[in-house]
Amino acid sequence: MSEWFETLPGLWTGLWDCLAEGVARRDAPARHVVLATVGLDGGPEARTVVLRGADADAGVIEVHTDLHSAKVAELRRDGRAAVVVWDGERRLQVRLSVAVTELQGDAAAAIWEQVPDPSRQSYGVVPAPGTPIAGALDYEKCADRATFAVLRCELRRVDLVHLGEVHRRAGFARAGGWAGRWLVP
Amino acid sequence: MSEWFETLPGLWTGLWDCLAEGVARRDAPARHVVLATVGLDGGPEARTVVLRGADADAGVIEVHTDLHSAKVAELRRDGRAAVVVWDGERRLQVRLSVAVTELQGDAAAAIWEQVPDPSRQSYGVVPAPGTPIAGALDYEKCADRATFAVLRCELRRVDLVHLGEVHRRAGFARAGGWAGRWLVP
Repeated sequence: MSEWFETLPGLWTGLWDCLAEGVARRDAPARHVVLATVGLDGGPEARTVVLRGADADAGVIEVHTDLHSAKVAELRRDGRAAVVVWDGERRLQVRLSVAVTELQGDAAAAIWEQVPDPSRQSYGVVPAPGTPIAGALDYEKCADRATFAVLRCELRRVDLVHLGEVHRRAGFARAGGWAGRWLVP
Repeated sequence: MSEWFETLPGLWTGLWDCLAEGVARRDAPARHVVLATVGLDGGPEARTVVLRGADADAGVIEVHTDLHSAKVAELRRDGRAAVVVWDGERRLQVRLSVAVTELQGDAAAAIWEQVPDPSRQSYGVVPAPGTPIAGALDYEKCADRATFAVLRCELRRVDLVHLGEVHRRAGFARAGGWAGRWLVP
């Protein structure tokens, strides 16, 4: 009986277990993932976001955002993003190359209905995120569905590295039906 | 007496405490940081790296790499990188915009001397990292100083968000002498 990280299907299952736990559990390693984009100046930008959805069958993950955040402007210019998770429990590094689609207004309404009230306060801050202010608390939160958006991230490529006693690395591509192959770590 | 996250100097000190712990402690939140770059295709790339140095006075952090890794090729083309840490203990998100300089050969020799022998095995894998292989373990590690490089990351801008009962966000810039100012979270 091999360990989960010793086979390509095992690693693939480990990936989606990791992501599902991130959506479900506040203390899971994949709760906070890093989303990297290309900034408006052409340089890299990256920030932590909360993982809100993971659909293994569709190969899609979701995060929520304020429409006025810099990442939305960046993704409208270049919809490519990279997502990274370090799962210390599994000793697994997850790297996803994704294509991002923005859902807002009616398309996001059903998802907004499921956002708990305290979390809704994250969408609709005044002034807009990133504006300089004199005091740390010189801003107001006001839940506003009109500034809520869902970033639907369709996976294109996946790179997994298991850092056990030996290192194993595998690459998977949507174009290859997610078959997977081993790579030099 | 205010909490550390309630003042700009307190946040600045918190940043360097977080980074110093990452260098010193294997289980610290900043041990593994995400380094984002612009890929050779112009899209974003990001991966986890181990934080190896943090110099508050110089405003510099360091990571080690294999010269044949993709990030080296990417940084030679565009030396800008973004570094992200999520420190759950401090409830602090750290975002750094850095300019990367590569030290290798003689310039990296003194640092190589301090790399413990097991870690040296990470530099000098054959075939090169990312090469497809038939079996997961079809590669050889052979410590090779010639493929070891230090990425010296000079901080240009810092963005900190403290996610306490209320959220506080501050921006710092080298150009502004790291004075810092509050931003809308």
